[in-house]
Amino acid sequence: VGAGQGRPGDAGAIFFLTDYGQLDELAGVVRAVLARLAPGAPVVDLTHDIAPFDVRAGALALERAAPHLGPGVVLGVVDPGVGTSRRAVALAVGAGRGGPAFLVGPDNGLLVRAADALGGVRGAVALSPVPGEGHATFDGRDVFAPAAAALWRGEELAGLGAPVAPGDLVRLEEPRLAAIDGGVEAEVLWVDRFGNVQLAATAEDGRAAGLEPGGGLALFAGSASWTARFVRAFGDLASPTAASRPELGVLVDANGRLAVVCAQRSAATVLAVQPGEMVQVVRAERATP
Amino acid sequence: VGAGQGRPGDAGAIFFLTDYGQLDELAGVVRAVLARLAPGAPVVDLTHDIAPFDVRAGALALERAAPHLGPGVVLGVVDPGVGTSRRAVALAVGAGRGGPAFLVGPDNGLLVRAADALGGVRGAVALSPVPGEGHATFDGRDVFAPAAAALWRGEELAGLGAPVAPGDLVRLEEPRLAAIDGGVEAEVLWVDRFGNVQLAATAEDGRAAGLEPGGGLALFAGSASWTARFVRAFGDLASPTAASRPELGVLVDANGRLAVVCAQRSAATVLAVQPGEMVQVVRAERATP
Amino acid sequence: VGAGQGRPGDAGAIFFLTDYGQLDELAGVVRAVLARLAPGAPVVDLTHDIAPFDVRAGALALERAAPHLGPGVVLGVVDPGVGTSRRAVALAVGAGRGGPAFLVGPDNGLLVRAADALGGVRGAVALSPVPGEGHATFDGRDVFAPAAAALWRGEELAGLGAPVAPGDLVRLEEPRLAAIDGGVEAEVLWVDRFGNVQLAATAEDGRAAGLEPGGGLALFAGSASWTARFVRAFGDLASPTAASRPELGVLVDANGRLAVVCAQRSAATVLAVQPGEMVQVVRAERATP
Repeated sequence: VGAGQGRPGDAGAIFFLTDYGQLDELAGVVRAVLARLAPGAPVVDLTHDIAPFDVRAGALALERAAPHLGPGVVLGVVDPGVGTSRRAVALAVGAGRGGPAFLVGPDNGLLVRAADALGGVRGAVALSPVPGEGHATFDGRDVFAPAAAALWRGEELAGLGAPVAPGDLVRLEEPRLAAIDGGVEAEVLWVDRFGNVQLAATAEDGRAAGLEPGGGLALFAGSASWTARFVRAFGDLASPTAASRPELGVLVDANGRLAVVCAQRSAATVLAVQPGEMVQVVRAERATP
Repeated sequence: VGAGQGRPGDAGAIFFLTDYGQLDELAGVVRAVLARLAPGAPVVDLTHDIAPFDVRAGALALERAAPHLGPGVVLGVVDPGVGTSRRAVALAVGAGRGGPAFLVGPDNGLLVRAADALGGVRGAVALSPVPGEGHATFDGRDVFAPAAAALWRGEELAGLGAPVAPGDLVRLEEPRLAAIDGGVEAEVLWVDRFGNVQLAATAEDGRAAGLEPGGGLALFAGSASWTARFVRAFGDLASPTAASRPELGVLVDANGRLAVVCAQRSAATVLAVQPGEMVQVVRAERATP
Repeated sequence: VGAGQGRPGDAGAIFFLTDYGQLDELAGVVRAVLARLAPGAPVVDLTHDIAPFDVRAGALALERAAPHLGPGVVLGVVDPGVGTSRRAVALAVGAGRGGPAFLVGPDNGLLVRAADALGGVRGAVALSPVPGEGHATFDGRDVFAPAAAALWRGEELAGLGAPVAPGDLVRLEEPRLAAIDGGVEAEVLWVDRFGNVQLAATAEDGRAAGLEPGGGLALFAGSASWTARFVRAFGDLASPTAASRPELGVLVDANGRLAVVCAQRSAATVLAVQPGEMVQVVRAERATP
């Protein structure tokens, strides 16, 4: 946001997500490259602790963040295929809604869910290889950050590489979700730091299955089952005490999805589930014991 | 601090502390909200690794940081009561000393110790609920960040909600500290990354009990005791070698409190203590073996 | 980079590396001091998770980052000798290449390898003690950050302390590296988050020993040995499957050094090596089984 350099004040930020972790200087070196090539650009670290190579987890995190991002460029790098023939891409998304205009990263499904949340892919290019570089192990530094910086500076997408048809971009499988008798069966998308278990089902999916705040529920995962309540907020659940087991709840979380939660305890530990596993949420009166 | 947008150059920074951890994008999404609602605001991450729900640890970290902060707004979120009837608050503190003018967060004791260190609470409001939001699980994103951004932009505190009497704010219990024969008994406030054990006793508390640099000490915790020396710096302690056990010291730490330390070793491991436990520091000649 | 305050837009950034970790607010307090004393300075966090007191790991991380940094000041703090007679220093390095002009930190070898990568030490001063401070346990906050901020603001190096002859600066031992029959023996410099094992040998060291992409290799570490291939990129290695063991490779990494790698697996786990240990890389036809 400097005066007399970089972009005018409305260029927004560069939103940065990777699986680089924080033990090494990898994310830091990319930040330095951005500071050099896009001086004045605010860099907003979303997270760098996506599990190594977990493209799906990165894609879901970007999708959750997308509605809250202001103008700018998304730089996402979770890239098990670095140094293979996978494409490096930059995507233009629907503008006019105040969010980011571009996403940059590998063409492995990392970016497309967020792009859809930002209005859909309007254009895409395969980033041209960097001339003269002998190695191909740190594309975040050598390929993606320079492209993100160029877009932030106002360069044209078309100048960064050859066009790619949006329909040719790699997409991840949709999260698994099914209506079942008296409720929904849904994939666990995310377990957050607090142990809240986000499911693929949205509030609307829940309503369609007759799941509404106030109702008693049964939860099934693996060969086990639990009772729970559909609540509006953490505060509706009994706080754990020495004498009582923690109470499980289901609520509509901050991303509009159903989540299994537990006041001040990890619901993921109670259920012993992790992302990719299935959970059934059923109205109590329909649960066959 | 851009030209032609946001606040003038003297608006300072937004100082940001949470228990969100860094594995998820939670802190990152809040940073994105700040970048959108307070464009140009430098966001200074204090830490996001306060233990989940540990309001006391967060309050002590903010208190330690407070004297070193420049102008701006403190945004603190350690909030086990999110979605309950606990208030969300913004506090105005004594200005004129170059530090932050406002603190924003839950009314659970997180902010008040830092506010006291910044000149005391001069005014407070209960933040008005966000209209139209159906969920109440991510107030950092939906309530606290927008309020912090508004204050950074120069909006009036009174416009953010109904006044709260400073005396009605929730306060944490004071750390435990007592004079004992020949020394002090003090609660462990903090164990830092290096294993240094900060006690509730200040340098002045130590002097009042006859504890001064140069003296021999005895330390008691649980049923164990150790000898130690009151030193001025880590460098006064013998470095550990293969042949020698590490030497324990007590010094006045960078926050003006007594701390039990060990050169290049964790004193917390030697003493096997953690925050909330009590340690006695006694002049060696007064320690009854 | 604000208008009307701080330095003009070309002052660059402050690049910040420590072993403070992220659990505490230590790095955050230093960031706050920088925001206060160098308002408008972009602070680029390189990493704060250097292992506690591991000066060598910090020095190598700074050296790896150095070629990618733009203008500004490097602030590095890995300082087991805080509070001893070790000097605090600021170094001026060869400018005219667009990188940082100064490095600030303890005189324990942390900075000199990076300074060499930035054109060599052209001048150095021992930072004057901070008057009136009673403690000496947090020099990052009290000594190094103020000096880095002063240099970023444009103050003269000579004003910060007494000159030190560059030849008198503390230097770490050179990494161990030797030509052996049919290859090289090299110290492990770094194991990154993904388990890639960076060796002290550069691509040129490899070529001098007849190690070139395409060749079959034998690796020796401790009493074990493995076969490997010299490849150009991760994508040249077979991806692991349930039925196959992961394939080991050696490639020229993003810092121009030989690294032992494994597609989507940790080569460090396969080899069971860590920094400071030795690995032999030998052409397969020269390896005596």
